[in-house]
Amino acid sequence: MEIKKIGLVGGTHGNELTGVYLLRKWMAEPALVQREGLDTRLLMANPRAIRAGKRYMDRDLNRCFSRELLDEPLRNCSEMERALSIDSKLGPKGSSEACDLIVDLHNSTAAMGLTLIVSRLDPFLLFACKRLLAADDQIRVYLMPEEQESSPYLPSISPRDICLEAGPQAHGILCADLFLGVERTVHRILDLAVEWNSESPGEPKPSGHAVYEHWKSLDFPRDREGNPSAMIHPSLQHQDYSCLEPGAPLFLGVDGTVIPYEESEPAWPVFLNEQAYYEKGVAVCLTRKREDLL
Amino acid sequence: MEIKKIGLVGGTHGNELTGVYLLRKWMAEPALVQREGLDTRLLMANPRAIRAGKRYMDRDLNRCFSRELLDEPLRNCSEMERALSIDSKLGPKGSSEACDLIVDLHNSTAAMGLTLIVSRLDPFLLFACKRLLAADDQIRVYLMPEEQESSPYLPSISPRDICLEAGPQAHGILCADLFLGVERTVHRILDLAVEWNSESPGEPKPSGHAVYEHWKSLDFPRDREGNPSAMIHPSLQHQDYSCLEPGAPLFLGVDGTVIPYEESEPAWPVFLNEQAYYEKGVAVCLTRKREDLL
Repeated sequence: MEIKKIGLVGGTHGNELTGVYLLRKWMAEPALVQREGLDTRLLMANPRAIRAGKRYMDRDLNRCFSRELLDEPLRNCSEMERALSIDSKLGPKGSSEACDLIVDLHNSTAAMGLTLIVSRLDPFLLFACKRLLAADDQIRVYLMPEEQESSPYLPSISPRDICLEAGPQAHGILCADLFLGVERTVHRILDLAVEWNSESPGEPKPSGHAVYEHWKSLDFPRDREGNPSAMIHPSLQHQDYSCLEPGAPLFLGVDGTVIPYEESEPAWPVFLNEQAYYEKGVAVCLTRKREDLL
Repeated sequence: MEIKKIGLVGGTHGNELTGVYLLRKWMAEPALVQREGLDTRLLMANPRAIRAGKRYMDRDLNRCFSRELLDEPLRNCSEMERALSIDSKLGPKGSSEACDLIVDLHNSTAAMGLTLIVSRLDPFLLFACKRLLAADDQIRVYLMPEEQESSPYLPSISPRDICLEAGPQAHGILCADLFLGVERTVHRILDLAVEWNSESPGEPKPSGHAVYEHWKSLDFPRDREGNPSAMIHPSLQHQDYSCLEPGAPLFLGVDGTVIPYEESEPAWPVFLNEQAYYEKGVAVCLTRKREDLL
């Protein structure tokens, strides 16, 4: 299966600036992301939220793309209107009319490095992930299995999805090292698609690299008003992808109490202290380390 | 001059959470910040902005306290109303009726560590800064000379002001190490006030510690739409208080161009890549290192 049409998306969240500035750069000079035999499509996903310097206006745009919502859209919602327009440009969902792959550029306040979040690993994504991991030690692969039809995420409208999460970066700023890392990674993905289309890669060999598979998320302990009553423990802050053993410190209460991690098996935490997830009831996502997939 | 009445302020900016959570903690248990012979006054400065999760609603509250604005307040401005109320509680400006010292708790996305920003170094602040620097190597002292009457900052309503800037921390999140550092520093300031009142410290000796004195600020290069066209150079990001030599890289253009620092004397940059200053036209503040003040 060739990868001919690639959608590059930025500004799905209006205050995640790496994607916003890269899309502006590429829109001003499209040749930068053109490749022989590829059709690269550029999309600035949420211009209103970008102008306002906010994640979203009415509703998180990156939760608007389930089949259910696309078929029965919410009314009077800026992001829902935008989702329908994006589905008509880069979708429609369930088809490969406009895109064989969408790469959606995000930032996180968590130390995600350059994380490729994928909902499944098809042959092209297996090939690309192995090559990207081998080339750059900031790369991580986070498998978040989703049914395409029910998935609410923007890139789920195409048959293959990469959400590229770069962090740590405060929302509303640009850090040069992450800008360069995301730019380099997108260029590599385009080059890998060209290589994929031109050769017929043999049976892929095990690479020894890990994939971090989503397990579940944990919320902060909260007080009666719903505010967090504890913080990510200082020994874990910015330690995304480290191994968290049962009994190890997980949270530190505002009152000084240490709250341990109480599951019976180790986990590899990611999205530790992501600002946008405070309102979603997520302090951390737990993953399992898989060494049998790549 | 004794230091008897201390105002502790948090939430001047609604999305700077260290102060918000410390004030909540102390308001629930005021004994934590009471000391023999001291009158500690607690203030949550901008509850509307805290509820909204924003820096401010209509105008930066920490730019509302000049004599001119207090005498002729802007109309229909949530923060201006709040400034008048705060001036009546912890001021009035120019007097020591309510406070001998105000400590206002802030966060920055820049790597400010635990920075004490002071507008002048009176005998008590000289004493306190020396002792705080000796006790904690995260502490920095940033002297930003201001005339009290024209200063727009909240703590300028009292005769002595400390703005405690803790970072790096993304706005809208809590990092435990900075929470603990700010809590510890406020406890030390209270203890130092008690010590100051009870003893008569001798002639202060030079401590050898530096003070960073404000020189000027520099904006990002900007494009025709007013958006930054360059980023803080990766060699400088999070290197606040390092020495920037003439000719060293300062910015990295979105197009890859390196833009050097072009002044004729070295500077010590602070507030490197502070999110809230993008809209104020400030990419970095330059200071001069003074070793003759403490």
